[in-house]
Amino acid sequence: MRVLLIIAYDGTDFHGYANNFGVRTVEGVLSEAICDLTNENIMLIGASRTDAGVHSLCNVAVFDTSCNIPADKYRDALNTKLPGDLRVTLSYEVPEDFHPRHADVRKIYEYTIYQGAVQPPIRRKYSWHIYQALDVGAMRKAAKHIMGKHDFTSFCSNNGNDVPDKVRDVQLVDVSYRGAELIIKVIGNGFLYNMVRIIVGTLVDVGLGRINADDVQGILAAKDRRQAGRTAPAHGLCLMRIEYM
Amino acid sequence: MRVLLIIAYDGTDFHGYANNFGVRTVEGVLSEAICDLTNENIMLIGASRTDAGVHSLCNVAVFDTSCNIPADKYRDALNTKLPGDLRVTLSYEVPEDFHPRHADVRKIYEYTIYQGAVQPPIRRKYSWHIYQALDVGAMRKAAKHIMGKHDFTSFCSNNGNDVPDKVRDVQLVDVSYRGAELIIKVIGNGFLYNMVRIIVGTLVDVGLGRINADDVQGILAAKDRRQAGRTAPAHGLCLMRIEYM
Repeated sequence: MRVLLIIAYDGTDFHGYANNFGVRTVEGVLSEAICDLTNENIMLIGASRTDAGVHSLCNVAVFDTSCNIPADKYRDALNTKLPGDLRVTLSYEVPEDFHPRHADVRKIYEYTIYQGAVQPPIRRKYSWHIYQALDVGAMRKAAKHIMGKHDFTSFCSNNGNDVPDKVRDVQLVDVSYRGAELIIKVIGNGFLYNMVRIIVGTLVDVGLGRINADDVQGILAAKDRRQAGRTAPAHGLCLMRIEYM
Repeated sequence: MRVLLIIAYDGTDFHGYANNFGVRTVEGVLSEAICDLTNENIMLIGASRTDAGVHSLCNVAVFDTSCNIPADKYRDALNTKLPGDLRVTLSYEVPEDFHPRHADVRKIYEYTIYQGAVQPPIRRKYSWHIYQALDVGAMRKAAKHIMGKHDFTSFCSNNGNDVPDKVRDVQLVDVSYRGAELIIKVIGNGFLYNMVRIIVGTLVDVGLGRINADDVQGILAAKDRRQAGRTAPAHGLCLMRIEYM
């Protein structure tokens, strides 16, 4: 039986989603809890390998098991074993050939920027503090250039050496206020390493007047990471939802 | 010179606002930073002695100093000395006779309840998780009985032995949804010990059908803490704003 888990975590104390020897990762902590529960040596397949410090409301992971626990009981059973910063919010059975990365998918991220002289401590782990005024109109203009199907080599750390195809379809980049916080919503079918954070960092550089909004087209064409803006810090980013078509 | 500080904190790692020997408090950490900066033995007067675990966006404290630092410079100067979970968001000079508790004031609190089977870890320190359905209509009916000028002995821990006058004017108790979170907004000129948390706990008991909405009038009249509902946990509560008239 293949079981799908929807998982939410506070990324603050995790060194990212993906297994990494010697450090605390979401995949590592979750795998251990499942092995402990099933008494099997299971292998997780995750949908999104979020970076260290990035939060999630809804990442997806599947595993195969011959244990007789009903699929929908994994949620409560695992939550009794997991630490407070990692929760399974739903569990159910999926077809044996369902693969969370190869399926037709939409991933919805939100990046939060706190605008104001001093950031409230209750938001310090969940928003990037930028006290300077941002030109939101220019950021929206730049966002339009990023939307669509492009080669995103310029928006990828290590020039994405491990991924041959750097074409991705970014369906939405929306910049809007929610109280004193500026939310950048990014929706796409998949993202390269650090890609959402580099999109946000570039928009912020546009908002601060360091990059011209219309230069974004040239930055995409250059296929050179050094042309884009900075990488926004991880803690402002949250994976909000993954939709399978 | 009397200096007013507006202070924001994440209550998670503080044993409340008020000084308390041997434990980490907001007043203790802030006083130490001011003494360190001014080289004086200053005394803080705070507006709200929030409970252990309660958060704040805007508590107010004043102190007298003969140090020659301009009042508006205390914000940045203190923030370099304070830990990340405590910030001064504004500082300015006030008249020597301004007292943050005796002035004519409105205090605005928000209590957040997460409704849903599993609480997302990023909200675990900032909302009370109640997965059972709540009858919001009944909670609003009970809220109307709480609003107004009453003797709040029934809504006060230790029967408020230290405060002779238990009459308070609650100007608003509003219950409304914000996404998956239920927000209980409470506005008043002042609150007794644990009073906001007992109001919220009583409304929740009404929402769960354990207390009848119309029994709230009798609970107020009884002047007996045992008649009201439970005390809601501290971590869902945040002091949002203090307004001086």
